[in-house]
Amino acid sequence: MDKVKVIEIKKSVFADNDEDAARLRSELKRRGVYLLNLMSSPGSGKTTTLIQTLKRLEGRLRVSVMEADIDSDVDAIKIQEATGVPSIQLHTGGMCHLDAEMTRQGLDNVALSDSDLVILENVGNLVCPAEFDTGAVRNAMILSVPEGHDKPLKYPLMFSVCDLVLVNKTDVMPYFDFDMDKCREYVHMRNPKAVIIPICAKTGEGIDAFADWLVQEVKNWKQQ
Amino acid sequence: MDKVKVIEIKKSVFADNDEDAARLRSELKRRGVYLLNLMSSPGSGKTTTLIQTLKRLEGRLRVSVMEADIDSDVDAIKIQEATGVPSIQLHTGGMCHLDAEMTRQGLDNVALSDSDLVILENVGNLVCPAEFDTGAVRNAMILSVPEGHDKPLKYPLMFSVCDLVLVNKTDVMPYFDFDMDKCREYVHMRNPKAVIIPICAKTGEGIDAFADWLVQEVKNWKQQ
Repeated sequence: MDKVKVIEIKKSVFADNDEDAARLRSELKRRGVYLLNLMSSPGSGKTTTLIQTLKRLEGRLRVSVMEADIDSDVDAIKIQEATGVPSIQLHTGGMCHLDAEMTRQGLDNVALSDSDLVILENVGNLVCPAEFDTGAVRNAMILSVPEGHDKPLKYPLMFSVCDLVLVNKTDVMPYFDFDMDKCREYVHMRNPKAVIIPICAKTGEGIDAFADWLVQEVKNWKQQ
Repeated sequence: MDKVKVIEIKKSVFADNDEDAARLRSELKRRGVYLLNLMSSPGSGKTTTLIQTLKRLEGRLRVSVMEADIDSDVDAIKIQEATGVPSIQLHTGGMCHLDAEMTRQGLDNVALSDSDLVILENVGNLVCPAEFDTGAVRNAMILSVPEGHDKPLKYPLMFSVCDLVLVNKTDVMPYFDFDMDKCREYVHMRNPKAVIIPICAKTGEGIDAFADWLVQEVKNWKQQ
């Protein structure tokens, strides 16, 4: 088993993140690479969801993964070992989010010519990552059932910027006061067009739907 | 029922947060007020834990609560309605943390002469709040079982700065792969002196122990 590559990300020195992000998105478009920015709270199940999803994408899309974390590299190792999908670890050095330049530093270490889709697992945080365009084509986030259906009320920007909301850990719905209808209502209050897919990374529920969404998205992006 | 006061917090213009924090702590000491900074991920159960704890502190300590949130004011209303404890809501205007000056702006709206203990519920975020000394006597955090026992590996600073870790939602332990021994080991790897109390805000387990810890802490602080 190869060790995963660990990249120490430096803070961006550029003033205009939006310009950097737009430039990065154009460049990825030219190279035929779709970048997904996946965000969530700590412990919502991003890594387990990715592992399940990558298994279902085998033979359908060529995928690479960038795992951002403040310090540890357990996630990238776990993903590469479980799926064989090339994964690198980005260390943000205490930073609570990634911006476009930091994302580019990560992408410089990814085999883009062998990738249709790059999934960026952002730092576990519902606040700061929402404020920075990474250059991704789409933003997605995972809200897990134990966190509660009221999170779109409390973290408005995160839910405004996300095109896709995966509601994870549906297997523990009976043990929590989580109202899926209210969740849908609150998410759509922030972004009426957001796609919502209930999933359970542990049992596999809904993962096919997420994988299909990704395949369709990448196809549309390449044809645009 | 009085509506709760909502304070729009301005970003600090002072350069040295550590100096501001030390000054605020001295001032609170002089006035006999103990400030606790309570941090956690979104959805870990801070508000429910507070409600249970405040009920057990009735007649033992005079408490006030400051609820920091990016936007909503549901938490302060919920606490005041459930417990009668005076609560104010701090709106951070998108900011992901509170610093000492922002905390002071909140405290200006609290009846300090009627308070032995002020509990500050920080923004739900395991990254940024850990970087800023608020002027509190102690930092505490809630880690909930569904988030996983590996969080001290991934959010090192948060666990380094916390004197107390409440491990919440112990009632759902059977449904998650959460190892309490490993959790203790990882927490103590970051801070060997951290006190760890397993609790369940829903069933009340461990809340007495947390309340007793607070009573003892405030007593020690006043006698120092």
